[in-house]
Amino acid sequence: MKIGIIGTGIVGRSHAEKLISLNHNVMIGTRNVERTLAETKTDSMGNVPFSEWLKDNPTVQLGTFDEAAKFGVVVINALRGEVVLDAFANLNKQNFDNKVLIDISNALDFSKGMPPTLLVRDGNSIGEQLQGILPKAKVVKTLNTITARLQINPLELANGDHHVFISGNDTAGKKTAETILKSYGWKYIIDLGDITTARGTEMMMPMWLRLWGAVGKPMFNYKIIK
Amino acid sequence: MKIGIIGTGIVGRSHAEKLISLNHNVMIGTRNVERTLAETKTDSMGNVPFSEWLKDNPTVQLGTFDEAAKFGVVVINALRGEVVLDAFANLNKQNFDNKVLIDISNALDFSKGMPPTLLVRDGNSIGEQLQGILPKAKVVKTLNTITARLQINPLELANGDHHVFISGNDTAGKKTAETILKSYGWKYIIDLGDITTARGTEMMMPMWLRLWGAVGKPMFNYKIIK
Repeated sequence: MKIGIIGTGIVGRSHAEKLISLNHNVMIGTRNVERTLAETKTDSMGNVPFSEWLKDNPTVQLGTFDEAAKFGVVVINALRGEVVLDAFANLNKQNFDNKVLIDISNALDFSKGMPPTLLVRDGNSIGEQLQGILPKAKVVKTLNTITARLQINPLELANGDHHVFISGNDTAGKKTAETILKSYGWKYIIDLGDITTARGTEMMMPMWLRLWGAVGKPMFNYKIIK
Repeated sequence: MKIGIIGTGIVGRSHAEKLISLNHNVMIGTRNVERTLAETKTDSMGNVPFSEWLKDNPTVQLGTFDEAAKFGVVVINALRGEVVLDAFANLNKQNFDNKVLIDISNALDFSKGMPPTLLVRDGNSIGEQLQGILPKAKVVKTLNTITARLQINPLELANGDHHVFISGNDTAGKKTAETILKSYGWKYIIDLGDITTARGTEMMMPMWLRLWGAVGKPMFNYKIIK
């Protein structure tokens, strides 16, 4: 399948690598292709410059946000949450018509120091706002409660015995997202309901940050015992 | 031990029953003793009038908020989160000096329909605000991510194979809270850190409400897989 990924960070790169390994065609979209390719510094999280990553992943195509959105039959939003709404407001919205848009973003504000605070509150999740900007897209919120490496390799932890959540208004859209999740190795998927339920998963981020501290590593996840 | 419980709702009653069964002395505090005893209606959640409950639990004492706080060596805040700060602002603060105050509250706003929305956001948890009002108390946030019945009977679900979280500034205070939790049957307790980490657990409430819908019952809990 042709999959467009919006965002060149660790989340976008992780999904690109995984999707290529699963024989999909992937285009990553960036705000400014030249600037992205010109970066020479490893970022504060230890991620190498994009051009260096691209050398190791030569089958991944690079384009603008609009080109990646147009390319994908399914599009993944892997932007940092705090820039999502501004970025999407400036995209060609028609590129998302009738497409599944998988939104993984978390709206964290790093401006006040660590740990970052959450910009959204109950009533205005990024997932809902994306659906509002793109009424013809099938927005599916998922994976945002999980660190990037585990998102694409759930079997690395307890052989996959933990949960991922999905939220979205469109049943077929959620089925498509579930198919991709299962191809990653996800065994246990909980459908929370419509896109307003993204409030639940987005507001788990402050807890995730504290658990990261308490557990001592980002490779952890929730299992719902019922 | 003498334990004061602030609040006459299902959470306060559940803990009172459990603590009495564990041979503690319990006083429940209410805003207005006469009014509480005069209630004759079963509430919207199906809870019988307090006086009726008290007949079945005759060893539980009833007093004002201040009397229950003064009575307890440990005090449990079992008020609805949306009234906590107003109620505590009007209490005699000295009754909490050097005492462990276990805060179970969740600040839910039911005024805009169901599901309720969360009043707090990242930066102002009820737990932190209580610690601010009562600087000499040892506030410990815990159990608010779990339905009342499971709070006091963790072994009813998967023989207790799931987690409860605690947050608080005072190590000895958290040890006291852990001792009570273990006496309830809790096997797995994660110490998240200081009282600011209550932001994490308080902001899980929107997720809890959606999981309740998805799971179909309130008797569920998180297990952290690491």
